[in-house]
Amino acid sequence: MTDAPPPRRVAVIGTGLIGTSAALALRERGAEVWLSDADREVAQFAADLGAGDLLPEAGPGQPGQPPPGPADVAVLAVPPAAVAGTLAAAQAGGLARHYTDVASVKALPLARARSAGCDISSYVPGHPLAGRERSGPAAARADLFLGRTWALCPAPETAPSAVSAVTSLVRACGAEPVVADAAAHDRWVALVSHAPHVVAAAMAAQLAGESVPEQALTLAGQGLRDATRIAAGDTQLWAQILAANAAPVADVLSAVAADLSEAARVLAGAADLPQDLAAKRLAALLDRGRAGVARIPGKRGGPARAFAAVQVVIRDQPGELARLLSAAAGAGVNIEDVGIEHSPGMPVGVAELAVRPEQAGRLIGALAAGGWPVRQ
Amino acid sequence: MTDAPPPRRVAVIGTGLIGTSAALALRERGAEVWLSDADREVAQFAADLGAGDLLPEAGPGQPGQPPPGPADVAVLAVPPAAVAGTLAAAQAGGLARHYTDVASVKALPLARARSAGCDISSYVPGHPLAGRERSGPAAARADLFLGRTWALCPAPETAPSAVSAVTSLVRACGAEPVVADAAAHDRWVALVSHAPHVVAAAMAAQLAGESVPEQALTLAGQGLRDATRIAAGDTQLWAQILAANAAPVADVLSAVAADLSEAARVLAGAADLPQDLAAKRLAALLDRGRAGVARIPGKRGGPARAFAAVQVVIRDQPGELARLLSAAAGAGVNIEDVGIEHSPGMPVGVAELAVRPEQAGRLIGALAAGGWPVRQ
Repeated sequence: MTDAPPPRRVAVIGTGLIGTSAALALRERGAEVWLSDADREVAQFAADLGAGDLLPEAGPGQPGQPPPGPADVAVLAVPPAAVAGTLAAAQAGGLARHYTDVASVKALPLARARSAGCDISSYVPGHPLAGRERSGPAAARADLFLGRTWALCPAPETAPSAVSAVTSLVRACGAEPVVADAAAHDRWVALVSHAPHVVAAAMAAQLAGESVPEQALTLAGQGLRDATRIAAGDTQLWAQILAANAAPVADVLSAVAADLSEAARVLAGAADLPQDLAAKRLAALLDRGRAGVARIPGKRGGPARAFAAVQVVIRDQPGELARLLSAAAGAGVNIEDVGIEHSPGMPVGVAELAVRPEQAGRLIGALAAGGWPVRQ
Repeated sequence: MTDAPPPRRVAVIGTGLIGTSAALALRERGAEVWLSDADREVAQFAADLGAGDLLPEAGPGQPGQPPPGPADVAVLAVPPAAVAGTLAAAQAGGLARHYTDVASVKALPLARARSAGCDISSYVPGHPLAGRERSGPAAARADLFLGRTWALCPAPETAPSAVSAVTSLVRACGAEPVVADAAAHDRWVALVSHAPHVVAAAMAAQLAGESVPEQALTLAGQGLRDATRIAAGDTQLWAQILAANAAPVADVLSAVAADLSEAARVLAGAADLPQDLAAKRLAALLDRGRAGVARIPGKRGGPARAFAAVQVVIRDQPGELARLLSAAAGAGVNIEDVGIEHSPGMPVGVAELAVRPEQAGRLIGALAAGGWPVRQ
């Protein structure tokens, strides 16, 4: 199948992180994008970011058509439980010729869309494997999907033209489409995403106990931060995701729980094993863990841009950072990012200004001339 | 207790990553450092790095005294199982006036040192919470301990002068001493380091199964990589660490396994709960996980202060951020941190201003009045 040309007119329903990022990416490729969100202020914020124009409002729960007619593709970037209803309403209003969603489970939304009487021939269930800890349009980035996998799970009755149009949208976002059936997709994400979330949460939950003193946490290192970071995600969103993929997630969690129980019994000497066999049992689990880690593909996507970091000592008081950045602006240097480090109670901190490498010299010269303590 | 002055003469036994890094840090503070390692070539490499001079060789397994007399402190940077024997030999040879070790478990080396007849009054069991993925003297850095926690677990019979001397050495390395008893330390590291390792391994082990196709792993994201990264550690080293802290680790693993079993039963509908109660049970676990993550101190030590984040759309051009921060300063609001997000090629970005929560309203009002697109 040849891909359709990149979509020229796209409707994005739901302007959170994923929806707004897709909108930004498609705008960069020259598409017209129409935005809608259950919270109109959120849609307005996305529009302010340059993600597109607001869709005219139609009936309740039913976004109006973009003037002057249906979009090529509508991206339904709403929570899993809302996909079928949103799809039904959008199709009833003639919002677009083809539809896709971005929910992280696929079998359930598809089943519900069928139950709701949606036209499945124009619907390609989708799931971009991209995200950030932060949510909402403010966290959106046009390059969020660059080099990432974007799963597409067409149903038997999905029309090839719909698959082609949505595949083309996925590529326009910079992602790699991977086609799978919905049930396989759901087993896979249970394994690589949903179960790991619960496992990280269960580990982190042990840190929340009242019996754990603050001092214990001062012994925590980067390993623990990394291992539990995903468990900081939104509870209601994750509870929904897990419920929507319950059986595959339960299978993985049972298997992990069994391995951990066994490890606990071996360590506690309760496994009735000779000591060398106990050690081997534990080592075997660690080895299987290493083998699993080795199978995870490396980080893909574009390399981080290399900015130069210019460090400036600043006093911790209102206006100090503004004066610093005014000085930088006076030198005609664009600050790409700002980091501030200061220890509680210290009267000074260090501002780290990220600039294009070729501008670092000019910035340092201007700041030093202005009396700022500066180093690269 | 006042700290002793920084140690002037230090012996480092074991010139791996930790020993050599401590030696480098102490040399920077002007100390004389004497080095020894079971592998003399490794000690020579550390000496070539500038970490100190080789100790004269004395009897087998018994490093000689640094000329012209005992060191102020000897740092025994050897594996946990070797601590007691090394301490006994060093004390027999009169290597130093005070001793510490760096093993990541504390109760077992202390118990073994007592059994081996060591003089506990001069021994302060220690554990610097610092490390790198790489090991050996070539990975050593003088700033490895900067701002890190270094646990000290004096026994009841440890002399105050020994605690004072070792505390001073820890500070000379740039670390923050935290005093705890050995049993509490071991429970804490079980919780923040050892059990998380096994939990990550058990999750990663599920990815190693033959029934998991390569395609499933293409759906893996940064979250899975982070959550399982620690499980890539050396199996034999970790098996030793776990065995040396078996009971506290087993306790944590049992509790995690119980929570995961319960989550699996709830998800599989096997918990005989009404649906809303099942959902609450699962949400409660996720909430406990979030609470645990929130307790982990940030990268730079100290729990992350809770600032409010105010998000503002800005154009990506020189001076824009300075104008924004001038507007904030004009409102008398102190900006605690600034983050900037923008996608390559986009003409606008989002500045995220961290402010004390009680100042967020004033900032938002002032910025909105000034025409900035702003939201919290």
